[in-house]
Amino acid sequence: MTDLVLSPDRLLPADPATRSVARRLYQSVAGTAIYSPHSHVDPSMLVDDEPFSDPAALFITPDHYVTRLLHAHGVSLRDLGCEEEGRPGETSARAIWRLLCTHWPVFAGTPVRWWLETELSELFGVRETPSAATADRIYDHLCQMLSSDAFRPRALFARFGLKLLATTDDPADDLSAHRALRADPSFSGHVVPTFRPDRYFDPTAVGWTAALADLAASSDTSCETYSGLLEALRKRRAVFAAHGATASDMGVPDAGSTPLTAAEAERIHRSALTGQVSVADATAYRHNMLFRMAEMSCEDGLVMQLHPGVIRNHHLPTLRAHGPNTGHDLPDATSFTRPLAPLLNAFGTHPQLRLILFTVDETTFSRDIAPLAGFYPTVYAGAPWWFLDSPAAIARFRAAVTDSASFTKTSGFIDDTRAFCSIPARHDMSRRADAAHLAHLVVTHQLPEDEAIDIARRLVSEIPVHAFKLEAYTL
Amino acid sequence: MTDLVLSPDRLLPADPATRSVARRLYQSVAGTAIYSPHSHVDPSMLVDDEPFSDPAALFITPDHYVTRLLHAHGVSLRDLGCEEEGRPGETSARAIWRLLCTHWPVFAGTPVRWWLETELSELFGVRETPSAATADRIYDHLCQMLSSDAFRPRALFARFGLKLLATTDDPADDLSAHRALRADPSFSGHVVPTFRPDRYFDPTAVGWTAALADLAASSDTSCETYSGLLEALRKRRAVFAAHGATASDMGVPDAGSTPLTAAEAERIHRSALTGQVSVADATAYRHNMLFRMAEMSCEDGLVMQLHPGVIRNHHLPTLRAHGPNTGHDLPDATSFTRPLAPLLNAFGTHPQLRLILFTVDETTFSRDIAPLAGFYPTVYAGAPWWFLDSPAAIARFRAAVTDSASFTKTSGFIDDTRAFCSIPARHDMSRRADAAHLAHLVVTHQLPEDEAIDIARRLVSEIPVHAFKLEAYTL
Amino acid sequence: MTDLVLSPDRLLPADPATRSVARRLYQSVAGTAIYSPHSHVDPSMLVDDEPFSDPAALFITPDHYVTRLLHAHGVSLRDLGCEEEGRPGETSARAIWRLLCTHWPVFAGTPVRWWLETELSELFGVRETPSAATADRIYDHLCQMLSSDAFRPRALFARFGLKLLATTDDPADDLSAHRALRADPSFSGHVVPTFRPDRYFDPTAVGWTAALADLAASSDTSCETYSGLLEALRKRRAVFAAHGATASDMGVPDAGSTPLTAAEAERIHRSALTGQVSVADATAYRHNMLFRMAEMSCEDGLVMQLHPGVIRNHHLPTLRAHGPNTGHDLPDATSFTRPLAPLLNAFGTHPQLRLILFTVDETTFSRDIAPLAGFYPTVYAGAPWWFLDSPAAIARFRAAVTDSASFTKTSGFIDDTRAFCSIPARHDMSRRADAAHLAHLVVTHQLPEDEAIDIARRLVSEIPVHAFKLEAYTL
Repeated sequence: MTDLVLSPDRLLPADPATRSVARRLYQSVAGTAIYSPHSHVDPSMLVDDEPFSDPAALFITPDHYVTRLLHAHGVSLRDLGCEEEGRPGETSARAIWRLLCTHWPVFAGTPVRWWLETELSELFGVRETPSAATADRIYDHLCQMLSSDAFRPRALFARFGLKLLATTDDPADDLSAHRALRADPSFSGHVVPTFRPDRYFDPTAVGWTAALADLAASSDTSCETYSGLLEALRKRRAVFAAHGATASDMGVPDAGSTPLTAAEAERIHRSALTGQVSVADATAYRHNMLFRMAEMSCEDGLVMQLHPGVIRNHHLPTLRAHGPNTGHDLPDATSFTRPLAPLLNAFGTHPQLRLILFTVDETTFSRDIAPLAGFYPTVYAGAPWWFLDSPAAIARFRAAVTDSASFTKTSGFIDDTRAFCSIPARHDMSRRADAAHLAHLVVTHQLPEDEAIDIARRLVSEIPVHAFKLEAYTL
Repeated sequence: MTDLVLSPDRLLPADPATRSVARRLYQSVAGTAIYSPHSHVDPSMLVDDEPFSDPAALFITPDHYVTRLLHAHGVSLRDLGCEEEGRPGETSARAIWRLLCTHWPVFAGTPVRWWLETELSELFGVRETPSAATADRIYDHLCQMLSSDAFRPRALFARFGLKLLATTDDPADDLSAHRALRADPSFSGHVVPTFRPDRYFDPTAVGWTAALADLAASSDTSCETYSGLLEALRKRRAVFAAHGATASDMGVPDAGSTPLTAAEAERIHRSALTGQVSVADATAYRHNMLFRMAEMSCEDGLVMQLHPGVIRNHHLPTLRAHGPNTGHDLPDATSFTRPLAPLLNAFGTHPQLRLILFTVDETTFSRDIAPLAGFYPTVYAGAPWWFLDSPAAIARFRAAVTDSASFTKTSGFIDDTRAFCSIPARHDMSRRADAAHLAHLVVTHQLPEDEAIDIARRLVSEIPVHAFKLEAYTL
Repeated sequence: MTDLVLSPDRLLPADPATRSVARRLYQSVAGTAIYSPHSHVDPSMLVDDEPFSDPAALFITPDHYVTRLLHAHGVSLRDLGCEEEGRPGETSARAIWRLLCTHWPVFAGTPVRWWLETELSELFGVRETPSAATADRIYDHLCQMLSSDAFRPRALFARFGLKLLATTDDPADDLSAHRALRADPSFSGHVVPTFRPDRYFDPTAVGWTAALADLAASSDTSCETYSGLLEALRKRRAVFAAHGATASDMGVPDAGSTPLTAAEAERIHRSALTGQVSVADATAYRHNMLFRMAEMSCEDGLVMQLHPGVIRNHHLPTLRAHGPNTGHDLPDATSFTRPLAPLLNAFGTHPQLRLILFTVDETTFSRDIAPLAGFYPTVYAGAPWWFLDSPAAIARFRAAVTDSASFTKTSGFIDDTRAFCSIPARHDMSRRADAAHLAHLVVTHQLPEDEAIDIARRLVSEIPVHAFKLEAYTL
C-alpha cells in the first residue's frame, strides 16, 4: 500500500470484452479539451496568477468534499484550517496535510480519494500513497512543485486543456476579475461569469436587504420596488452577457414556480422591506422570482440552471463558527414535475430557453427529470452532481435517464468545484464512467461501437456546447 | 452505421459464462405465445382488417413514446402529423417518416430505438439503419410490405403468436367491435375488453356529466344518484365479463381508498351534478370510488389493475392544440402502502380479488409494492411500465422486487402499447431482460439453472395467466 | 432440482477475474467471529438451553420473513401454526413443515431461500432440496439433529462463533434472563440487552398507561409526571448498562426530534394520562422523547439506534387474529435530514453520542443517511435491514452510501432476526455481498486488493465494535 500507481484502465468494466470496448471509447476522448460550464473557481486566482500557497490551501481547507469526510471522522474544522468566527484559520499547512494523510484509509472507495489520487499522481508526480509515514515527504514534494511556474494557475489552466471555465457570481459582482482577464492580452483562455441571483430570492433571509442595496448600487437602479428589482436584475444579466456569460444558475429550496401578479409581488416586496413578511408570502415571492428568471431567459437567452432541494447549513453551530459551505448543506426530498408546471406551461417550448435541472435526490432521475427532458424541448437533464458525482452514481444516472431523455437531452459533465486542480480529474472520471456505460450498451448489442464512440465524443463537446450555448467558445 | 443487423444475443449479459446461461434461458421462451393482458390497441382494427395506411401512421404519429422524444428535440407535433385542434394532421406520411429517420441518432440507447429496430428488421426485413440517406428507400420498402396481405392486422396477430389481447375500454363502450370479432368465424384469436372506469372517478373533471349520460344510456340505468351510478357500473362490468373481460384498470392521481357512507357519497354526487363540489369532496368521492371498484371485484372477480401517480396533460398548450396522450403525461411521486390501507383492510385477503399495482415512480418498487405483494395474497407487483419498460428498468424492477415479492407475485409482462407492431418486440425485450436477470442468479449460485428455466417459462405463461385470470384463454 | 449442494462461490461475481479477487476477500473473513449487536433472539432460550422442539418452531412459525411470503401465496397464518386470538397454534409441526417444502419454488431468488438453504445444508447436513417428495425425510432428519446435544442453543451459540449477541428488551424488563446467563459459570458467551423504549413514546397507543405502570414498578419511580418518566427511563438505562448493554434502539413512525419545554411535556403527559391528547400533542410528545433519548445517550454513552418509517400492523384483521409481528409491518416513505435537525443541532458533534440510522426506504441511502454520516461525527449508516437485507440490496446500499459516508461510517452488518439459526447464514451473506462489492472496486482499480482485504476484515470487526461500542466484548 505504499506505491501510488494508477492503472490506465481504472473505472473501466472488469469483463474483458467490455473493457476492451470501453478502452477504445475512453481513448477517443481522453485528454481532449474540457468545457467547464459550472464551477466555483475564483476568477481572481487567474488574474493574479500567483503560485498556490501550500498543499493544504490547494487540496483541503476550501474543499468541503474533503473537510466534511474528515469532520465525519472526528477531525475538527479548526484543525483543518477553516476560518473561525470570521478569522482565518491558524493551523499550519503541514499539520493539515498530515491530517489528510493519516486519514487516507477513510477515503477508500470515495470519489474524493479517486480525484486526489489522480491529481497527486498525474499532475504532481507523487509516487507514494499518502500515510503518516509519507505525509512530510509528499508535502515537501508538493511545495516544490507549487513553487515552479508550471504550477501557477494560468499554466495549469492551459495544461488542463480548459476550453472554457464558467465561474459563479452574484449579480452585484462588478466582474472586474473577468474584465481584467478579458483585457489581458497574455491570457487567451475563456473565463466567463454565471449569473447567480440566489441572494435576491428569499425576502426573509438575513442579508436580503443588504443584497438589494448592493444590486441597486451595481445596476444604478433602485430596488425599493419589485419592478425596480426586476429591472436591476435584467440590467445585470445584460452586463453578465456582455462579459461572456451564457448562463444563469439558481439554487432554491424547492422548484415552485407559480407567478404572482405585479401588484401581489410589489405588496410582498414592500412588506419585506419593512421586515414584515409571512412564510407563505416569502414562498410565493420566491416561486414568482423563479418564474421571472425563466421569463428573462426567454428574453435574453441566458441558459437557466436550476438545483432545488438542498438544505443549507444544517448544523448551525458549525455555521456560526466556520461560516457557510463547510460540508453540511444536505439533500432534501425533491420533485420537479409538479412545481415546475407553471414555468413550463408558460415557457416550456420557448425557442430561447434552456432549462438544465440538477438534483441531489436521485429519485428524481427517472421520475421527474428524464420524463421532463423527454418531452420539453427546453429541458435538459443536468449531470449527476455534488453528492452524486461518483462512478457509481454516474452509472445510475445514465441507466435511469437515458430511456426517457436519451444522451442528447443531458447537459454534459459539470465539475461544480472549488478545487481547481480537481477539474481534470473530475472530467476524466466522468469520461471513464460514460465509456463504461456506453461499452455495456455496445456489448449487449444495444448500440454499435462506432455510434458509441460518436456519443462519447459528443458528450464532451457538442452536447455541453449546445446545452450551455457555448458555440462562441469552441475555437 | 448503415447495416441494420441484430445480434441474436442482444440484451444478454457480456460475461461469457453468464451469457451462455442467459442464451439457454432466453431460448426456452423465445417466440413462444404472447399474452397481452394490457394493451391500448383499437379492436376495430382487427374487425376491419384493413391494410395499415402508411409507415408514419403505423410507427410514429399515434405512438407518444416516439413523438415525445422527437418533440423533446425540437420537432413540432404538427410536423409529426398529430391532429391539431381536432382536425387530422396534414403532414405527408413520407415527410413524417423522414423526420424519424433524420433523428435516428437521438434515440440511441432508448427502448424506443430497440423496439423500432426489432420491428423493422424482424418483422419488415429492413436491412439498413434509418438515416436521411436511407429514409426514402426504407419508406418505399415498408409501403410495399404493408400492401401485402401478410401485413394486415389479423395476419400479424397470428404471426405475433398472440394468444390473448386485452384492449382498454370505457364502461359505456358498446363493445360492438369485440362482439363482431367474437361473432366472426374467420377470426379465432382471443381479444377481450378491459373495464376502465376512469371517466367516472373525478366529479370535477370536464366531461364527467357527459360520461354519466353515456353510461346511463349504455346501461339503461339512471346515474342521477350515486347508487344508480354504482348499479350502472356493476351492470357494465357484467357485460364486459360476458364479452370475455377478466380485468378492470384504473388510472388515478393517487391510490387513496377511504370509503364513504352511502349518504356521504350521495351528497357529493348530488352537489357535483349541480357543479358545486369542493376539492376535498371530489377527492373523497374519488377515493371512495376506488374502494367500490375493489368491492365489485370481490363480487364479480374482475382483476383490478391500478396505476396511480401520473400527472395528466402537464403542458396545457399542447393539450389544447393536439389533445391528450401526446407525451406529457408525467410521473408524480407516489405511494401505495398508506393510501391503500382502507381497501386492503377490507378486501386484502378476499379470495376473489387480484390487485395488480403499476407505478411510474420506481421508489415504490422496494418500498411499497414488493412488501405489499409479499404479504397480501391479493396483491401483485405489476411489470415495469411506461417510463420504466426498458432493459435497465426491468433489471432494477427484478432486483428491487424479488427479495420481498418473489417472481410469483409479479404480474408477467404487459406491453401497454398503442403501437400494434411493437407488441412482439416489447415482449421479446422483456424475455431477454428476464433471462439476463435469471442468468445472473444462476451464475452467482442463487438459483439452479433448471429452476431458472422453469421461472423464465412461467413468467410468460402461468404467472400472467394466474395474475390476470386468463385460464380460459390458454388453449 | 433434488440435490441441495451449495457452491463455495455463491454470491461472488461471475466475471472470472472479479470472482477470484472476491474469493480472496471472502476467504479472509469466512467463518471469523460474529458480532450480532442487533437481534431479536429471546435470551431465556440460552438460559434454559432446551433442545428446539421441532423444525416448524425453529424455521417457520416465529419468522415473519418466512410466514409472510407463504401468506402472500395463499397459505393462512393459522395453517402455519401462528397463535390465534391469543391461543397457541394447533397445526402439527410436520404439516407446517410440509407447507414450507411444497411452497419451496415461491422462495426462488429471495434471501429467505438463501438463508434456509445455508442453514439446512451447512448446519444440519440436509442434502435434498425441500419439496413435497422430500418434506417428510428432511423433517425426520431435522428432528433427529435437534434431539442431539450439538443442536442445543448454547452449543449452536459456540458453533456459530458468536462473540456477542445483543437482544432487544423493554425498559421494564427485569433482565433476569441476562442476569442468569451472566451468573452461570458454564456459559461464557457475551449476551447483552438493548434498551428499546418504544412503548413509552406514543401517549395515544393502546398500552401506554400499562407500560408506564410496568416501568414505574421496575424502576421504583412514579411515572405520573413526565419528569418522573424520564427519571425512570434514566434509571433503567443505567441498569441495562450494568447488565452489559451498550446500545438503545428506537422504532418510530418518523424521525421528528423537536424538543419541548419541560412544562409543555408535562402538560401533554398529564392530558395523556386522562386519555385526552390530540394527535398534534401526541406527535410533539413523541418527537420530544426522541430528543430526550439522544440527550441521555450523551450522558450515559448508550449507542442510539434509530429506525423510523415503518407502518406497524397494516392489516388489522391479521393483527386481531394473530397478534403483532406477523408480516404486515410495512415501509413508509421516510426522511432523516429535516426531522433530525433539532437533535443533530443539539448533539450532532457530541463526543459521547453514536447515532446509527436504519431505513426500509432505500431512497434515503444516498439522499439522507450517507450525507449525514459524511458530515456528523456522531452519525453512522446502519446496515441494510429488514426488507433490504438481500445481496441485491446490500450492493445498492454500498454503491449508494460509500461515496459520501465511506466504509468506516457504516455500522457493520446486523442480522435483526428472531430466527436463531439464521444468524450465521445472514452474516455469511453479508460477507459475501461485501466481498463482491469490494472485488468490483479492486478490479476497476478503485482500491488496491490489500486495502480491500483490510476493509473486508474491518467490516466484521473494528467497524461494528466501534459503532456499537463493543470494545469490552472483543476478547
